[in-house]
Amino acid sequence: MPTSQVVDAVTARLDAFVSLMRAGGDEYGPDAVLFLDAAAATLQGGKRLRARFCHDGWASVAHHRSPDAAETSAVWGLCAALEIFQSAALVHDDLIDNSDTRRGRPASHRALEAAHRSAGWSGDAEAFGRASAVLLGDLLVAWSDDLLEDSLTAEPEAVNVRREYARMRRDVTVGQMLDIAEESAWSVSPAEQQLERALRVASLKSARYSIEQPLVLGASLAGANSRQLEALRAFGRPVGMAFQLRDDLLGVFGDAAVTGKPAGDDLREGKRTALIAVARGRLDAEGQETLDAALGDTTLGADRIRELQSMIEATGAPDEIERMIAGYADEADAALSGAPLDAEAITDLRALATAATSRSA
Amino acid sequence: MPTSQVVDAVTARLDAFVSLMRAGGDEYGPDAVLFLDAAAATLQGGKRLRARFCHDGWASVAHHRSPDAAETSAVWGLCAALEIFQSAALVHDDLIDNSDTRRGRPASHRALEAAHRSAGWSGDAEAFGRASAVLLGDLLVAWSDDLLEDSLTAEPEAVNVRREYARMRRDVTVGQMLDIAEESAWSVSPAEQQLERALRVASLKSARYSIEQPLVLGASLAGANSRQLEALRAFGRPVGMAFQLRDDLLGVFGDAAVTGKPAGDDLREGKRTALIAVARGRLDAEGQETLDAALGDTTLGADRIRELQSMIEATGAPDEIERMIAGYADEADAALSGAPLDAEAITDLRALATAATSRSA
Repeated sequence: MPTSQVVDAVTARLDAFVSLMRAGGDEYGPDAVLFLDAAAATLQGGKRLRARFCHDGWASVAHHRSPDAAETSAVWGLCAALEIFQSAALVHDDLIDNSDTRRGRPASHRALEAAHRSAGWSGDAEAFGRASAVLLGDLLVAWSDDLLEDSLTAEPEAVNVRREYARMRRDVTVGQMLDIAEESAWSVSPAEQQLERALRVASLKSARYSIEQPLVLGASLAGANSRQLEALRAFGRPVGMAFQLRDDLLGVFGDAAVTGKPAGDDLREGKRTALIAVARGRLDAEGQETLDAALGDTTLGADRIRELQSMIEATGAPDEIERMIAGYADEADAALSGAPLDAEAITDLRALATAATSRSA
Repeated sequence: MPTSQVVDAVTARLDAFVSLMRAGGDEYGPDAVLFLDAAAATLQGGKRLRARFCHDGWASVAHHRSPDAAETSAVWGLCAALEIFQSAALVHDDLIDNSDTRRGRPASHRALEAAHRSAGWSGDAEAFGRASAVLLGDLLVAWSDDLLEDSLTAEPEAVNVRREYARMRRDVTVGQMLDIAEESAWSVSPAEQQLERALRVASLKSARYSIEQPLVLGASLAGANSRQLEALRAFGRPVGMAFQLRDDLLGVFGDAAVTGKPAGDDLREGKRTALIAVARGRLDAEGQETLDAALGDTTLGADRIRELQSMIEATGAPDEIERMIAGYADEADAALSGAPLDAEAITDLRALATAATSRSA
């Protein structure tokens, strides 16, 4: 199925769900509309990456069994639930990272802060924005579960899907915890293990969460056998690692006009990515000091960002990360060769993997 | 079953679950231990109120059918899942309210801030505490779902329990949203509707969440019929309202040594409770101005708190709230008369209701 059809179907499923939640929100009174609107707004746009991997995971198994198998409402519901969960994660992520923008628009805590101001409410608008973003993320997690359960009611594979979904939630949350811990703990942790720690975070936060687990969720819903699941995991994990390493490069060198995030955002946030670990390992003591002092400095201007970019570039670290990405891509490619999965779906999966790992946004 | 036995069984179930999560946490590496410890710490202590109502809801139905029915692991799992969800809510609540203490100990964001300092990490310890508390709440929600699902796997009533659980999560989250919105929006909202708005928040955040929904969850697991559910709802809702009104009184007049929270905490947080709505409605313009200026002022000292307490006292609002509590208690009592529920469980429920609404902590 062409990507645009998958995206449209998932978006339609999300819209229907949001309408249902709005209709049920009447009893919460008129004041709740602000929050329901904010929740709905987070579901607009985005690449629907997780939904697409989930769909293709399902198709690779369902169409292998029967080429005519059609997507059920459970398939779209599961795909849409993943997108809602991702929105929840982004709301909390942007809050934690103090990111002002998301997908080129104000991040949720900023949008809620603005709503407070324009309503002429009393008190601290910024504090309100931050507090309500905590709850907004919580509401979206609840919505994601609601849609998941609604979709699984009559599914024979519900238990397996729930187990994987639960695992996904724990993994990504712990991954984010380790990520923010590393922003502070790197200074007292062994420097030679920095790359290893960065890759562990990448594995939890991205490789499993963004690619492998959506694939496996879709495949599980379709009743995948263990050989099929193994092949999809063996494919999804390296694609996910490559996806995160690409993200690391974009976080430092990306074009703001394309990514929708300010250039050099990862530097200001002090993210201790694999890119930074490799670069730091190749710098002399003075260079390391300069890098350490700059990372996490939220006031870094465009000039300082350009200097840091040059410094990182000069270490050859970006080339090394590109080599790692290529290696992961090869590993992913090999995992699908001869796998007991639908041939057309394999073609789609390979295209999706290429899009996810060679993207510019 | 005596309350202490219920509390012990729920605590044992929580301990077993935490051990399982710790064992599974090895693959997250040594850095994750800090967060797993923090999550486990939030599950210590507490009155286990929701678990007790859930258990008694179950018993009122299960023992009505068969007096010898024994608690299954699903019953304790459901009770324990509710307590984990409550811990998640408290972690986010304390963060939002900037509360430094919980159950007489540092709130989670403060404990994580202290952990950052004592580990000698670099960067902003307070920001780390706040960021990781967002994720800690997320992890606890995931844990709560995990335990719920683990408990429901083989249960015939799983669909009904899940539906009510999902409803509970939406209700309490929207209730908290309306609560913080009212802290800011009261100034541009009709004053004569302030009590109505406060009671709606109380209904969502407390009446349903703390009492009615735990009762119904337990009863649903036991396979309650619609008459039984109606009776429990008719009982739980007013008990929950009385519970919240008691909380409002304690939030202004409670003894810090007993509540484990600073005296007058609700005043500093600017909570627009029913108590405040009634008091404000009885003050003259000057008094209203004094009250409005003080509410939400985080720097209020002991003297100012005492002045405000006297001012609220003098309006007679606390007496009015006590009358409302008594009215709700009568309503709850009447709801159980002649209900098709186990007689011993009814006695336990009445005792639990009294404890929840006449408590001092």
